[in-house]
Amino acid sequence: MRERIFLALVHHPTLDRRGAVVATAVTTLDLHDLARLGRTYGLCGVYATTPLRGQRSLVARLLKHWVGGAGGRLNPCRREALEGLRVVESLAEASREVERLWGEPPVTIGTSAREGQDRLTFREARSLLGASRQPVLLVFGTGWGLAPEAEAACRWVLEPVRGAAGYNHLSVRTAAAIVVDRLLAQE
Amino acid sequence: MRERIFLALVHHPTLDRRGAVVATAVTTLDLHDLARLGRTYGLCGVYATTPLRGQRSLVARLLKHWVGGAGGRLNPCRREALEGLRVVESLAEASREVERLWGEPPVTIGTSAREGQDRLTFREARSLLGASRQPVLLVFGTGWGLAPEAEAACRWVLEPVRGAAGYNHLSVRTAAAIVVDRLLAQE
Repeated sequence: MRERIFLALVHHPTLDRRGAVVATAVTTLDLHDLARLGRTYGLCGVYATTPLRGQRSLVARLLKHWVGGAGGRLNPCRREALEGLRVVESLAEASREVERLWGEPPVTIGTSAREGQDRLTFREARSLLGASRQPVLLVFGTGWGLAPEAEAACRWVLEPVRGAAGYNHLSVRTAAAIVVDRLLAQE
Repeated sequence: MRERIFLALVHHPTLDRRGAVVATAVTTLDLHDLARLGRTYGLCGVYATTPLRGQRSLVARLLKHWVGGAGGRLNPCRREALEGLRVVESLAEASREVERLWGEPPVTIGTSAREGQDRLTFREARSLLGASRQPVLLVFGTGWGLAPEAEAACRWVLEPVRGAAGYNHLSVRTAAAIVVDRLLAQE
């Protein structure tokens, strides 16, 4: 079932600290971490989405270095992970790419550090992954999270990873790792 | 029980890609991610360990900015996380610091991406955390992981976070997040 699962790391529309909708800057370390996570858990691929052409060029350069270039020769494990990374303009384009590969559109599951109505529980999400024949796209927002319109574009939004005492400010790297492990670990 | 648990992020003795024992460079993003993880899960504190004085100064500067300085005023959540971070020379010093706080030395649990003999399972580790009255120090290696002498200094070494298909190259940020969640989540 893992081979039907994709990640998307969204850089727009996302929120900044004040709640404004922005396009965040790509953090290259996010791409490495999510690509390595995807490869470790046997996912089908990771999409970085940004509408900014310059930022997509940056990701393309990173891929050139690590997949086809010196980085990949020096560190084949890293190359193997980054081979699963693609850069696209938007979440919609990521969905279309998945549809092109699978012949049907993915079920999109957004994530959020905020509580909200009708959040999918982790238990429900695991059942859904087990039962669904469709591909699934797990969507993570950078900055201060997915903007409401990005959440609204998802079929489901997963409940937050709740901490111990009301504090919940994980990085997207660590939150994505916890979510993927909770959904897919065979401990 | 969380308030008895500490993390240590070790920068020496660690392995490089070729298996040589080295002191790795501090990645400031690791410190942010682990401090945020520790705060989110209600841990008592996070130690960054490095024998290199210049690297400890770097961490001290980072703490000055985020705890006492402009960064902390701009982003109080980040300040709150980084208040739990300390920098020390070695894993032994981190243990002594925990002992100073708790009156007894911590049980040290190392982590590794490699299989090995007598690894503690996640299930056993959860029981141990639940049953132990002692503080516990969870130890993570940077670079290509803890050197054998650092593993040998730990009371236990936890089994790896296993991926799907024999590939296991998570970043220390994402691996630490998964380990802490597996040990402490109340889903």
